[in-house]
Amino acid sequence: MTINIALLGAGRIGQVHAHAIATSEGARLVSVSDAFAAAANSIAERFGCPVVDTDAAIAAADTDAVLIATPTDTHADLIEQCARTGKAIFCEKPIDLDVDRVKACLSVVNECNARLMVGFNRRFDPHFMALKQAIDDGSIGDVEQVQITSRDPGLPPIEYLGRSGGIFRDMMIHDFDMARYLLGEEVTQIMATGSVLVDPAVAEQDDVDTAMAILATASGKQCVITNSRRASYGYDQRIEVHGSRGMVSADNPRIDAVEVAGEAGYSRGPLHNFFMTRYTDAYANEIKWFVDWVSGDDVQVPGGQDGLMSLCMAEAALRSSKSGKTEDV
Amino acid sequence: MTINIALLGAGRIGQVHAHAIATSEGARLVSVSDAFAAAANSIAERFGCPVVDTDAAIAAADTDAVLIATPTDTHADLIEQCARTGKAIFCEKPIDLDVDRVKACLSVVNECNARLMVGFNRRFDPHFMALKQAIDDGSIGDVEQVQITSRDPGLPPIEYLGRSGGIFRDMMIHDFDMARYLLGEEVTQIMATGSVLVDPAVAEQDDVDTAMAILATASGKQCVITNSRRASYGYDQRIEVHGSRGMVSADNPRIDAVEVAGEAGYSRGPLHNFFMTRYTDAYANEIKWFVDWVSGDDVQVPGGQDGLMSLCMAEAALRSSKSGKTEDV
Amino acid sequence: MTINIALLGAGRIGQVHAHAIATSEGARLVSVSDAFAAAANSIAERFGCPVVDTDAAIAAADTDAVLIATPTDTHADLIEQCARTGKAIFCEKPIDLDVDRVKACLSVVNECNARLMVGFNRRFDPHFMALKQAIDDGSIGDVEQVQITSRDPGLPPIEYLGRSGGIFRDMMIHDFDMARYLLGEEVTQIMATGSVLVDPAVAEQDDVDTAMAILATASGKQCVITNSRRASYGYDQRIEVHGSRGMVSADNPRIDAVEVAGEAGYSRGPLHNFFMTRYTDAYANEIKWFVDWVSGDDVQVPGGQDGLMSLCMAEAALRSSKSGKTEDV
Amino acid sequence: MTINIALLGAGRIGQVHAHAIATSEGARLVSVSDAFAAAANSIAERFGCPVVDTDAAIAAADTDAVLIATPTDTHADLIEQCARTGKAIFCEKPIDLDVDRVKACLSVVNECNARLMVGFNRRFDPHFMALKQAIDDGSIGDVEQVQITSRDPGLPPIEYLGRSGGIFRDMMIHDFDMARYLLGEEVTQIMATGSVLVDPAVAEQDDVDTAMAILATASGKQCVITNSRRASYGYDQRIEVHGSRGMVSADNPRIDAVEVAGEAGYSRGPLHNFFMTRYTDAYANEIKWFVDWVSGDDVQVPGGQDGLMSLCMAEAALRSSKSGKTEDV
Repeated sequence: MTINIALLGAGRIGQVHAHAIATSEGARLVSVSDAFAAAANSIAERFGCPVVDTDAAIAAADTDAVLIATPTDTHADLIEQCARTGKAIFCEKPIDLDVDRVKACLSVVNECNARLMVGFNRRFDPHFMALKQAIDDGSIGDVEQVQITSRDPGLPPIEYLGRSGGIFRDMMIHDFDMARYLLGEEVTQIMATGSVLVDPAVAEQDDVDTAMAILATASGKQCVITNSRRASYGYDQRIEVHGSRGMVSADNPRIDAVEVAGEAGYSRGPLHNFFMTRYTDAYANEIKWFVDWVSGDDVQVPGGQDGLMSLCMAEAALRSSKSGKTEDV
Repeated sequence: MTINIALLGAGRIGQVHAHAIATSEGARLVSVSDAFAAAANSIAERFGCPVVDTDAAIAAADTDAVLIATPTDTHADLIEQCARTGKAIFCEKPIDLDVDRVKACLSVVNECNARLMVGFNRRFDPHFMALKQAIDDGSIGDVEQVQITSRDPGLPPIEYLGRSGGIFRDMMIHDFDMARYLLGEEVTQIMATGSVLVDPAVAEQDDVDTAMAILATASGKQCVITNSRRASYGYDQRIEVHGSRGMVSADNPRIDAVEVAGEAGYSRGPLHNFFMTRYTDAYANEIKWFVDWVSGDDVQVPGGQDGLMSLCMAEAALRSSKSGKTEDV
Repeated sequence: MTINIALLGAGRIGQVHAHAIATSEGARLVSVSDAFAAAANSIAERFGCPVVDTDAAIAAADTDAVLIATPTDTHADLIEQCARTGKAIFCEKPIDLDVDRVKACLSVVNECNARLMVGFNRRFDPHFMALKQAIDDGSIGDVEQVQITSRDPGLPPIEYLGRSGGIFRDMMIHDFDMARYLLGEEVTQIMATGSVLVDPAVAEQDDVDTAMAILATASGKQCVITNSRRASYGYDQRIEVHGSRGMVSADNPRIDAVEVAGEAGYSRGPLHNFFMTRYTDAYANEIKWFVDWVSGDDVQVPGGQDGLMSLCMAEAALRSSKSGKTEDV
Repeated sequence: MTINIALLGAGRIGQVHAHAIATSEGARLVSVSDAFAAAANSIAERFGCPVVDTDAAIAAADTDAVLIATPTDTHADLIEQCARTGKAIFCEKPIDLDVDRVKACLSVVNECNARLMVGFNRRFDPHFMALKQAIDDGSIGDVEQVQITSRDPGLPPIEYLGRSGGIFRDMMIHDFDMARYLLGEEVTQIMATGSVLVDPAVAEQDDVDTAMAILATASGKQCVITNSRRASYGYDQRIEVHGSRGMVSADNPRIDAVEVAGEAGYSRGPLHNFFMTRYTDAYANEIKWFVDWVSGDDVQVPGGQDGLMSLCMAEAALRSSKSGKTEDV
């Protein structure tokens, strides 16, 4: 069985998904659409599929699934449109920056009995998958504390920050999803703090660039997340999970296994400095999982509820960073 | 010049200090005292010094300095008594569990112009010293975020917990001191959370065994501390400091550099499982620093103010863990 | 410009190359041939190319290059046949197990002015490439000593050993090529030793399963190679190069960056246990380099002379292991 | 029971031993002697023991054991003199640079039923002890191959080289002892090579500064040793042992557990650059073992036969490096 997938959005992340679809067994890229014709044409040419307009792509009878990689503010509408045609949907996170809009969108998805997967790529990173597997295998007993470090190599363009929803909704949202995923229990309370240490221009966007949050579940499990928009040594993404019987950690994968030693000591190169090279395997895996799931395999994928919960956590963290109080999710 | 030191308290930590004094160039153990005669005799015999009573030890004309390693509730009184005789004082942390008592004690110390060093041994651990040196050398630019992991191998006796002052005053206080030391700026605000996950008996002592705290300074620097009374793999003590130009980390020192590889993969042994073997060098170093300082060298040692500030931070963390609000230090 | 490549040989390694060609920009798989029809059909179907017979493949006018992945004893004949038609040639190592046959084959290649690349895949492994780059960058000064560890997870089938040419020609030949490549100077003398420690059946094939060799160049540079047909923890391939100013090492890449800690200590999983998963990137890279080289780019690839030299080194090592003397290459 | 030990030789290594004796429970330094009075006086003052002449030290009735830390060419005579007075003997390696002299000396030791321990300090290094323990525990099955890397930070004074007996007798002799110790079977054959790459002045001493040797036992176990008189990054001492079921390795212990990350990547400091700081614990341990052994404990220590065998191996390696043939030990 081959799943025919239409790609909406031919930007940077759309290209990644196009490649993943094209090289995935069991999937075929049937069309690409983008408001910017040159982008759509480039993908069409490289992967040998037609350019169509968005409505036609969603309506096409030979299309089993739609991959939404368009700007964030179009996600919810497109999800609803796809849901109504009965297409399986893969949507880049977030569904929307507004909690109510997300809830409304998910209602439509539910009414239509549509299948929606949200692109939390980190769940599909081989290192984090191995970490999760170790937990599920009982290697560390009951989970007690999770420590997530997530640092970007550098600030995105300031104008991007302005429409990103802020560090909690744009960056820490990935970590919130991982926290839920690894704690195995809903987070009920969050306390957070944020500062502007990297660039004063961030403050002008009413945002912060350096943040920490502590999460707690009803049974008292804890998680701490550390974020910064700056890491000179590369894209730093590590997780440590402590349980009743031990710890499991996922360190940063290295670009190569080479070390040089000289008078000044031992040195290794910096980390990946771009999320696409860091998460190459994760992007390929998430499409593979999506295809398997649409094909009817009994696999677990992050859905609309996961998208909603992470956004609610981001909201709570943002409130806490302003109120100085623990906030309920 | 040789510094003559009287040791008050011949328990476990007293023995460590006796050994450090005896093997330290420039220091001599002149007497030992302890309410429990057998303990004092054991040290006296091993290191060749007389057993005397506490008052005599403090009053002795040939004694330059007093090392206080008695139970916590005697510290403040003994510090004052020593201060009044003009002795230099090394006191195990904490000075007292009550902030007002500490303040009163420090007033006496100040009036007497006495020299008081508080035993924050971690500042003297070679690994943390190298980490601090890297910061001071400018290797990472301006400090922005500090991450401190501190996990005990196991719960102390429950009856000890009852008089310990709780996890924030007994365990996290070490991390509060390191946080201040590394941030290079006073912590003004703390938010903390605690749970009982290790042993329900801890709750009966009105204490927690699993805790996290976020600290912030006036300029927005941040620190997170993670504590647990349980770590099956040993005494886990790590610090990571992120700055504007990079990161410096101090990993756990290993007992040996041996790794075994077999069908199941690669394995290394657990960590030190006792603070005295983990911090052997730190205990030796702090006495060396104390002796140098008393001898007039221009070295930096943690003093009464450091003891007071850490206690105030512990109080704030405890308050926050109960109020759910950010608390001022 | 697109290079049209005909694949000869549709076995295990042929499949790897077919995939590399199909996903390589600038290359196209134009045909596949194999004496075993099912194998050829499988590749033809998967990558959308016709099955043709070997002579037709080599003669085809629309074919720029031929990739020889057939059994070893056909390599030399096929190289000559391709050379005479002016095709660019990629041949799996070794060219032949007999030095004289290799020399005769290379004469034909030279007469025809043909382009021949030999598949020493390790030169294209990203880790070893980074190691070589560090040497070329001058990071360690002049190379003095090279240490190569190369251990297979387990014995190949005994019947394979019988026609493999023995451990020096079959397994250590890769390390001989790396030694030459890294020393930057021809090896002139070799001393070697071999034992049967893994399986007595190896002795019946007049072969050994555990071997060491020391190599020396005219200027006194040294290299040691350690080989074993057994490594319970996976495919162990490491290189260390010492120079006048320091050392550079390439450790084994790990399958994931996960570590579990518990009562018994810290553990990581085993290594890759199959050369194809270990060298996935290397196989992709070598095809990319081949395509670039055929396209006229000024890149360095291992050629016929490299294949010949490695074989001569293997012969010298074999002689030394029997004579107990240092042997000239 | 306290063992009274006389120290012969108050040079650099004599000071190390004096300290080890002074801080060892169960041992007492009863005297020190040295042709150079100032050296002897310095130790006498620091550790509170009398300076006596060598003959008196050996003859003294209250002395149980003698520690010989004098120049190499006096070792054999002093061992014989001590053996005849019934003293237990600890002698720094080597016993002598001449095999016949060593044999004659060991005859006297045997006739006198004297107890002789030879100072192969590496056997007492905690890291190598843990490695040996893992082998003895059966962690890796039967030993098959040993890889020893041993690199000095820099050349010793050229005039020292002239009387050292050359790299095989002076430096690699330590590795020969470890090889025997770890292989668990006598080495019967050696092939070796040496070059002058570090300093041409070494050649004028008829010595080499860069060497490799392969060792084999009767059953076919193998060991490779790599030596260099140069390592810019410090004193590099590593061992890897491969067995039928796995591998155990002892990496270099690090001075601290600190790593700095910045734009250029990750860096750690260099290794210890002096054998005394690298082997501090080993020197303390070997005296402890000696004292326990003399006290009658059933412990294993390296004796005269071990000293002889290592020297024979050095001779064989030297012969091989000149003859280009495998040499019998």
